[in-house]
Amino acid sequence: MSKSLPKRSEDYSLWYNELVKRAGLAENSAVRGCMVIKPYGYAIWEKMQRTLDDMFKRTGHQNAYFPLFVPKSLFEAEEKNAEGFAKECAVVTHYRLQTDPDNPGKLRVDPNAKLEEELIVRPTSEAIIWSTYKGWIQSYRDLPLLINQWANVVRWEMRTRLFLRTAEFLWQEGHTAHATAEEAVAETRQMLEVYAQFAEEWMALPVVKGVKTENERFAGAEDTYCIEGLMQDGKALQAGTSHFLGQNFAKAFDVQFQSKEGGLEYVWGTSWGVSTRLMGALVMAHSDDEGLVLPPKLAPIQVVIVPIYKTGQLDELLERIRPMQMGLIERGISVKVDDRDTERPGYKFAEWELKGVPVRLAVGMRDLDAGTVEVARRDTKEKMNLPLADIVNSVAALLDDIQVNIYRKAHQFRETHTTRVDTYEQFKQALEGEGGFVVAHWDGTSETEERIKEETKATIRCIALNEPDEDGTCILTGKPSKRRVYFARAY
Amino acid sequence: MSKSLPKRSEDYSLWYNELVKRAGLAENSAVRGCMVIKPYGYAIWEKMQRTLDDMFKRTGHQNAYFPLFVPKSLFEAEEKNAEGFAKECAVVTHYRLQTDPDNPGKLRVDPNAKLEEELIVRPTSEAIIWSTYKGWIQSYRDLPLLINQWANVVRWEMRTRLFLRTAEFLWQEGHTAHATAEEAVAETRQMLEVYAQFAEEWMALPVVKGVKTENERFAGAEDTYCIEGLMQDGKALQAGTSHFLGQNFAKAFDVQFQSKEGGLEYVWGTSWGVSTRLMGALVMAHSDDEGLVLPPKLAPIQVVIVPIYKTGQLDELLERIRPMQMGLIERGISVKVDDRDTERPGYKFAEWELKGVPVRLAVGMRDLDAGTVEVARRDTKEKMNLPLADIVNSVAALLDDIQVNIYRKAHQFRETHTTRVDTYEQFKQALEGEGGFVVAHWDGTSETEERIKEETKATIRCIALNEPDEDGTCILTGKPSKRRVYFARAY
Repeated sequence: MSKSLPKRSEDYSLWYNELVKRAGLAENSAVRGCMVIKPYGYAIWEKMQRTLDDMFKRTGHQNAYFPLFVPKSLFEAEEKNAEGFAKECAVVTHYRLQTDPDNPGKLRVDPNAKLEEELIVRPTSEAIIWSTYKGWIQSYRDLPLLINQWANVVRWEMRTRLFLRTAEFLWQEGHTAHATAEEAVAETRQMLEVYAQFAEEWMALPVVKGVKTENERFAGAEDTYCIEGLMQDGKALQAGTSHFLGQNFAKAFDVQFQSKEGGLEYVWGTSWGVSTRLMGALVMAHSDDEGLVLPPKLAPIQVVIVPIYKTGQLDELLERIRPMQMGLIERGISVKVDDRDTERPGYKFAEWELKGVPVRLAVGMRDLDAGTVEVARRDTKEKMNLPLADIVNSVAALLDDIQVNIYRKAHQFRETHTTRVDTYEQFKQALEGEGGFVVAHWDGTSETEERIKEETKATIRCIALNEPDEDGTCILTGKPSKRRVYFARAY
Repeated sequence: MSKSLPKRSEDYSLWYNELVKRAGLAENSAVRGCMVIKPYGYAIWEKMQRTLDDMFKRTGHQNAYFPLFVPKSLFEAEEKNAEGFAKECAVVTHYRLQTDPDNPGKLRVDPNAKLEEELIVRPTSEAIIWSTYKGWIQSYRDLPLLINQWANVVRWEMRTRLFLRTAEFLWQEGHTAHATAEEAVAETRQMLEVYAQFAEEWMALPVVKGVKTENERFAGAEDTYCIEGLMQDGKALQAGTSHFLGQNFAKAFDVQFQSKEGGLEYVWGTSWGVSTRLMGALVMAHSDDEGLVLPPKLAPIQVVIVPIYKTGQLDELLERIRPMQMGLIERGISVKVDDRDTERPGYKFAEWELKGVPVRLAVGMRDLDAGTVEVARRDTKEKMNLPLADIVNSVAALLDDIQVNIYRKAHQFRETHTTRVDTYEQFKQALEGEGGFVVAHWDGTSETEERIKEETKATIRCIALNEPDEDGTCILTGKPSKRRVYFARAY
């Protein structure tokens, strides 16, 4: 609270980093590229986890846990997947340290404790999981196999940013096995819908659902579906992916099943994941120059009550506040009474604004005597005086309204930052202006996609599922195109 | 179900391994010493997690997340801790693989991607967490700091066993910081009580609470408190530990705070943890030759309903079962209706016995017509016919009774397997007989403790908190002793 945040309009990137740290979400650690998720940030992540986990279970999935390490021989079994992740993986080569003979008091790797086979710290778990599925699947009766795992993974990224790109991150990864391609595709799309629903209804983040181009596909997948959100600086952010793996991993790990008809067939697979990256999306999509703006459904504290009192009055005031506090708690609303006697109301207001608490109640003796409460909403910064008698209902309704309003605002932002263009000039202008999604015709080739990326830094975020067919010509090459795709600069 | 389990009386160790695998709790993986926790096992672990997490939060703790890796320079900062874990840690030395020039299609570690400083995969997180706390703690106002983390850790054990000792395991680790030694000791003991309460009320496992001897203390702690359970083979199992760290980590990482009086002091610390080892304790404490016996509070499925029907009747029967099923679900009881048309009732009975489902209802048309249900309890194998009209209440009461009965049985076993002895001969006889806890006088020296361990394989499990003072003489050396301690052979 000592000084104000950098402004979004002046340095969006600095604003983001400072906000994440000052609001107590996360910070950098002593390990290059790895973050510490602080209690307030972790509390939001826990709400995300709980919600998603319930959604996965309602769609028939069970949780399990597979090893952190992948032996090199398994890691390299699915070639494309291995190639995709080999360049950025942490490798365990030894299993012991010893006192350094040249440096007493210091340790060094024990040269006699070298592993026969190196272990890769999982960047994703298809390899270890499909090598396990071989033992679990013999017959069509063992299918579908619907498993999810909550875990940490490591990708040795060179440029990292809190939540958005870190060497270690937390995520969930679903890995399912099916008897037919149709079932596997249906699962892939179902989980995309689950992610989209979570993003829109819980994170208040409108998303475009689509399919990735070959260039952007998950290494080892036949198709990658994704949801793409738009941040306030006009850049897109991939918020979740769901992959149709075909029979690639089944073939790499020899996972076959006896079909109903008696034949032996390779299994069809999917995998899908969202990560702590969602935390970054949540911050970037809604927050402002005063701090976080959290959707009520994910806010660890939904209502903060700040007592306004003269010296010596605090205990009595807290006593009078208690019925309101209890009423809110009974309604299932999480409430914090900021009873610190060491800070002034203005300081507290600023702190809870920074932390994005959706509703603030400022309560003094005089208000209570008059039967009113001063209510401030974080999203619009409106203040109003509401009757004390009906405060629980009013706050509950207000929280619902804030959830809807945050979504509506983000949706409106996306609408005003989605431009349909027909020429390369218009395309570049749209990107250089306020950014956002630029929806344009593309000739379908990787070469064109790459040239556009080199020249404009924009990538194809997805071929949107709800984009209608339309005859047109590629903005770069003029070749024929059947459908527009979504371009954007992206995180 | 193809063949029956090995018997406990014939090969306890084989019985345990087979049971863990066949009941679908866990299996060995392709990675040496690492297990796969299967969905049914993970469902039990999730119930444990949820319960403990609620208990931690009720006692004022918040969750956070710290990096998987510990840079070597931090790892070695607290000398005793480093020495304790250096011999069994996984070390990351490289961050990239490349195509092996001698073996196209294979990968090898890229010699140009060697880390400047090796990273240790955390065997426990004191080092990384206390290096972080240095930034979080400046003043007494920042204390106490009450943090917990759910995470995976790696200890490169040479002899591993599913759940009991694995190279990677899942756990929670609490790490707290306090202004005074008294507060830190109180926290250490509070968390010991939380663990004991969880073990007894949820796992139905009676435990002895005590303090470890110096030999068995956590590396870097001033005192290690523990809870010790007794397994059916007469061996003890340490089920949770809570450490008073003194100022050891605060000094190693220079974590000082300004006291109320204005001085600069080192912070006092605690850490405490339980792990997936609890799963092993749960299995070993209660299960029998037919399979798992799960306490209802931790059973993923509390009631299984097996329809008994003639060909063609299944759909109608399921329809008639539904009200009972819904009644149980509304009561908060987890129910599984085994509607598989491919297996016979006897097969289903055996399968759910193996999986330890506390209550089984076998329901046929004739029973329903007569207004009764056949109820079988897993713990005592009793069967009874109960009135359909009141079945929800009966089952709810039965589940409570089973929880109590499983605890009572384990408690009785411990009572009959706790022997108080006064001579070394009696001591060895007790161990060679049915094992269990042997409570005896000890002279307080590490030498005696080690000699007893060498000669009998028994270790001091703890100096029990509720053991009264009593003058006596050490069973080995005859030297004076003020208090008996708990010995046992242990996992």
